[in-house]
Amino acid sequence: MRITVLLFDGFTMLDAVGGYAVLGWLPDAEVEFVAETKTVIADDLRSGGMAAWRDYSEVEKTDILYVPGGPGGRPQLTNEATLAFIRRLHETSTWTFGVCNGVEILAAAGILKGRTVTTNYYARESVASFGANVVPARYHRDGKIVTTAGVSAGIDGALFLARLIAGEEIAKTIQLGIEYYPHPPFSYASPDDVPESIHNTIRAAEETGLLEQMETTQPCFPQPSL
Amino acid sequence: MRITVLLFDGFTMLDAVGGYAVLGWLPDAEVEFVAETKTVIADDLRSGGMAAWRDYSEVEKTDILYVPGGPGGRPQLTNEATLAFIRRLHETSTWTFGVCNGVEILAAAGILKGRTVTTNYYARESVASFGANVVPARYHRDGKIVTTAGVSAGIDGALFLARLIAGEEIAKTIQLGIEYYPHPPFSYASPDDVPESIHNTIRAAEETGLLEQMETTQPCFPQPSL
Repeated sequence: MRITVLLFDGFTMLDAVGGYAVLGWLPDAEVEFVAETKTVIADDLRSGGMAAWRDYSEVEKTDILYVPGGPGGRPQLTNEATLAFIRRLHETSTWTFGVCNGVEILAAAGILKGRTVTTNYYARESVASFGANVVPARYHRDGKIVTTAGVSAGIDGALFLARLIAGEEIAKTIQLGIEYYPHPPFSYASPDDVPESIHNTIRAAEETGLLEQMETTQPCFPQPSL
Repeated sequence: MRITVLLFDGFTMLDAVGGYAVLGWLPDAEVEFVAETKTVIADDLRSGGMAAWRDYSEVEKTDILYVPGGPGGRPQLTNEATLAFIRRLHETSTWTFGVCNGVEILAAAGILKGRTVTTNYYARESVASFGANVVPARYHRDGKIVTTAGVSAGIDGALFLARLIAGEEIAKTIQLGIEYYPHPPFSYASPDDVPESIHNTIRAAEETGLLEQMETTQPCFPQPSL
C-alpha cells in the first residue's frame, strides 16, 4: 500500500506526522514524502525540517494521497504544479486524505466540489467557497475522501481510515502502538467551545502576519538536494 | 527560551513532533534539533527523516532538554556520547522532558535515580531497573523533570509543561492552535485497559525483531551533512 505524503515550505509538522504515525504502521505500508523539489522542507516554525525524497514527477499514482496543512498552505492554493499533482493522483487514488487546511488545498485543486468535508475551524469558509459542504467534525468520510479538523485531528482521522482499510483489530493495535489514549490537561469538546478571548489571541497572531513572518524567516538548516 | 530536541537513528517521529508542536509555540521559543552527527536522521519506519542541524558539541546548555523515544532508543542506552550529553545538559536545564522510552534513555544517563516518572507501558520495568519510581500516568512531574507515556502522550505532557512555563491562557491558546480536542474513533482509558489479544500482537512484533529489522533497513533518503 503506497502512501504519498505531500510536503511544502511552511507546512505544519504535526499535520503530516500525526497521520503518518498511524498509516505508516498499516500492513505493507510504503510511505513516501513528496515535494515540488527534493530537499529538506522547512516547517512553519522554520526550526523543523523533514526530508522530501521524491518529487512530483516521480509519483505516477498512489493508494493514499495525504495532504497536510500549515501556514505555508496558502501559497499552494495558487501553485499550479501542486494543484495539478493533486488532481492527477486523486484521479486513481484509493483514498485521498486531507488534514487541517490541507483540505483547502484539495479544494483549490477542484476535487471537492459538492463533496462533504471537514477542515480546521478557521478554514471552513474558504473551503466552502470552493464548492464543498463543510461540517464541523473531528474527521469525516465522503466516499474515498477522508478529511480532518486541524493539526492533531490527523491522528483521529488516520485511525478512522486505518480501520476502514485494515479492520478494527489492526487499527486498535496501532492505537496501542502510539499510546493514543489522550488526556489533555484541560479540554473543550471542540474549537467551537473555546472562550472568545483565546480565539482572539489566535486572530491577533494571524493579523500580525504569521505567514509573512514565516516567509521572511530563513530555515535554521541548509537545504541540500536529496 | 531554548528548547533542545534530541534525535537519533530510529527515533519515533511523533515522539519528537507531538511535544515540539506545543512547546515550539511558547513565547520566545527557540527550538533546535540536535544529534550526534548533523544530518537527516531516519526514523523507525525509515521513510521519515528529520533534520538535526546541531551536534552535541554545539549545545553548551539549554532551557528545555527534550528526549523522545523509539525503537532506536535501545542502542542509545549504551551510547556514552548521548548519555554524557544528557547528563551535561540536565545539570543546568530548567526543564528536562522525556517522552515514551526517551525516559529510559534519561534513566540510563543516571539522572532519574529516586525520581518518580512515567514512561511508555512496555518500558516501565526497564526504567524502574535504573532506580526510578515508575507510575502509570499519561504525564508526570517530579521537580524539573516532566515525563510522559508513549508516543502521542508527548502532546499531553507538553501542554502540561506549557502551562507550568507560560500559564493556562497561553497553553490553552496553543491547544486551540493545534486543535487538540481529541476524539479517537475507539478508545480505552489507558494501555492497561486494552484487551490482551491486542497486546499480544505488539509483543509478537517485538519478538520478531522490530529493532533488528529497522537497523538492517536502509533509510529511503540520502543523509548529507547539514
